[in-house]
Amino acid sequence: MSATATPELKNSGLQGQVAGKTAICAVNQTELIYRGYEIADLAANATFEEVAYLLLIGAKPSASELASFKKELIAERQLPALVTEVIRKTATLPNAVPMDILRTAVSVLGHLDPQCQDVSKEADLAKAKRLTAKIPTIIGHMQNVIDGRDIVEPDPSLDHAANLLYMMTGTKPSAEAAHVMDVSLVLYAEHDFNASTFTTRVIAGTLSDMHGAVAGGIAALKGPLHGGANEAAMDMLKEIKVDTASGTMNVEQWMQRAFTEKRKLMGFGHRVYKNGDHRATILNDLGRAVAEKQGPDSTKWFDMGDQVQAIMLRDKNIFPNVDFPCGMTYFVMGIPVPQYTPIFVASRITGWAAHIIEQHSNNKLIRPIAEYVGPTNLRWK
Amino acid sequence: MSATATPELKNSGLQGQVAGKTAICAVNQTELIYRGYEIADLAANATFEEVAYLLLIGAKPSASELASFKKELIAERQLPALVTEVIRKTATLPNAVPMDILRTAVSVLGHLDPQCQDVSKEADLAKAKRLTAKIPTIIGHMQNVIDGRDIVEPDPSLDHAANLLYMMTGTKPSAEAAHVMDVSLVLYAEHDFNASTFTTRVIAGTLSDMHGAVAGGIAALKGPLHGGANEAAMDMLKEIKVDTASGTMNVEQWMQRAFTEKRKLMGFGHRVYKNGDHRATILNDLGRAVAEKQGPDSTKWFDMGDQVQAIMLRDKNIFPNVDFPCGMTYFVMGIPVPQYTPIFVASRITGWAAHIIEQHSNNKLIRPIAEYVGPTNLRWK
Repeated sequence: MSATATPELKNSGLQGQVAGKTAICAVNQTELIYRGYEIADLAANATFEEVAYLLLIGAKPSASELASFKKELIAERQLPALVTEVIRKTATLPNAVPMDILRTAVSVLGHLDPQCQDVSKEADLAKAKRLTAKIPTIIGHMQNVIDGRDIVEPDPSLDHAANLLYMMTGTKPSAEAAHVMDVSLVLYAEHDFNASTFTTRVIAGTLSDMHGAVAGGIAALKGPLHGGANEAAMDMLKEIKVDTASGTMNVEQWMQRAFTEKRKLMGFGHRVYKNGDHRATILNDLGRAVAEKQGPDSTKWFDMGDQVQAIMLRDKNIFPNVDFPCGMTYFVMGIPVPQYTPIFVASRITGWAAHIIEQHSNNKLIRPIAEYVGPTNLRWK
Repeated sequence: MSATATPELKNSGLQGQVAGKTAICAVNQTELIYRGYEIADLAANATFEEVAYLLLIGAKPSASELASFKKELIAERQLPALVTEVIRKTATLPNAVPMDILRTAVSVLGHLDPQCQDVSKEADLAKAKRLTAKIPTIIGHMQNVIDGRDIVEPDPSLDHAANLLYMMTGTKPSAEAAHVMDVSLVLYAEHDFNASTFTTRVIAGTLSDMHGAVAGGIAALKGPLHGGANEAAMDMLKEIKVDTASGTMNVEQWMQRAFTEKRKLMGFGHRVYKNGDHRATILNDLGRAVAEKQGPDSTKWFDMGDQVQAIMLRDKNIFPNVDFPCGMTYFVMGIPVPQYTPIFVASRITGWAAHIIEQHSNNKLIRPIAEYVGPTNLRWK
């Protein structure tokens, strides 16, 4: 018998415990703030590049600061040949998912970064810009390899979000698709001490380097209890569609069966938000607008999503989080489901990097203690 | 001005805060226990393979359990060709250190593991054995590539520690060298919620996979405030030797200068241990015994180390941690300094894997909250 199955090993998961201070982001029941700006304000008025500057540098850019920041990002989009080669050799391996390939690609990028071992603020900021610029290219190249297409090089005439969609498909996106992607990147950019950001801070707190911290962040974000939920939410909706297609079961019955089976429904609830996720309604409205232009084959997903959300709220008093509308939105935009969480990384890299810089600038090793509940006083001989 | 330099951002690093329960290890002022067994007992009486079994399975193995466990490890030592190829292409890159290459190699190993995406206890245990078996081979192959030698395949007739030394050099180690390596692996195998283990638990807590969690653990262990300290301690001793060689300065003067300059001296102090690290004296005695057989060119390092330790204790009341004697011990054994922390990984993989299994078996997302100290009420437009 292993000790690991004992119920007293259930932990609190640091729920509600303050693990440190930050000047980057505030998450609470009434608001989500990036460096002083409320998320609805940013979603309506700022581009992803502006938000990236805000998070990384700490203040809203002037027009000329923004222009040179965008130029820096565009100049850094290309991947070193070795990273592309590693993507080619791994992206179609049967046991790997895109989040794994992205983790490896970022790890290899570190080996080729001239400032990899430098944890100064200047070096961290330069590496943050390079990672922000290159991660969409990793995603694009990976998707082209998976689809058996030629790799699509970045287009310097396109903004960050539009270029990401372009590299994934080889087709320049509509202005509307680019805008929706841009807003989703704004919404996903930062969220204080979520599990992946906390991972990057624990790693950076040993004075380890940014690429290693980001590789760890990607590993954490992959999990279905974290970033992986946007993929899992869409997979669940597809499952509901299949199960209800024959007419023997409707959405209400599907949900009641799920409740009876105590199944975990993805894209619902949040460790911090108890009265709803500020980002969910913004993205739900945008995604539905995209679907409505496309017609009933697309709106049916949002109609089904509305039903599911209403039943969850009525019976369980649980609100959707941002991952629920994100799944449907990316789906109607035609993005392959296993890239939803990598796209989350393309956004969250800015928040992670801001936290790594903040951690390195005021460093203290993050090392809690454990309560030991195992055996004692054993002798080997 | 950036907000990241404000002094109120200094965090507590969760010092003294309980982050969860574990049945794997207890670290306190009077003892270090692995699943009920005290570290001095294990260092004197158990091999690394026995300790690996103890940590992963949860109890001391019988003779036949141990025999089949060792057989499983030996059968899993070989690397997939793609991992070896990635090591060949990255190990000599000028911006990479061995800990980075090891992180990438483990990340790629995940893509080739048939159970990569399975987080069940059975799959986790199988993956833990494979990682424990293969990490020494990654280190060995990497060192051969760095040295421009042919790769040395694992020798199934050798135990874990001896085979690690053999693969790094192509020469079978003496029984004494193999024993010292084995004891150092026992000492490094587990240490409750240290920063790298805590990293693996935060990653695993999202229900992400073991290879990703271990890649994050490697990134955390690399830092000089954590595993990187064994390399940094030896680098410091080499610097003292150079600075004192001309006779214009002795060790006492070097130390006083370091104190005046408020320099951080590596391999000293510990977040938990305040009266000394239980592992340090065990390894110091073993390392000195190796040095004494070799003669004065080796013992001089331990003599210098004794002086440095005595001055630190006298003037600062700070004890060495295990990384201090480890640096000297691996040095007199002829191991290249940048492999000290990768060898630490070859041991700690067992503790990390045990914690990942424990986390997955009683999972709760690890997601603390942050205290926001940044600006408020800004408007973008």
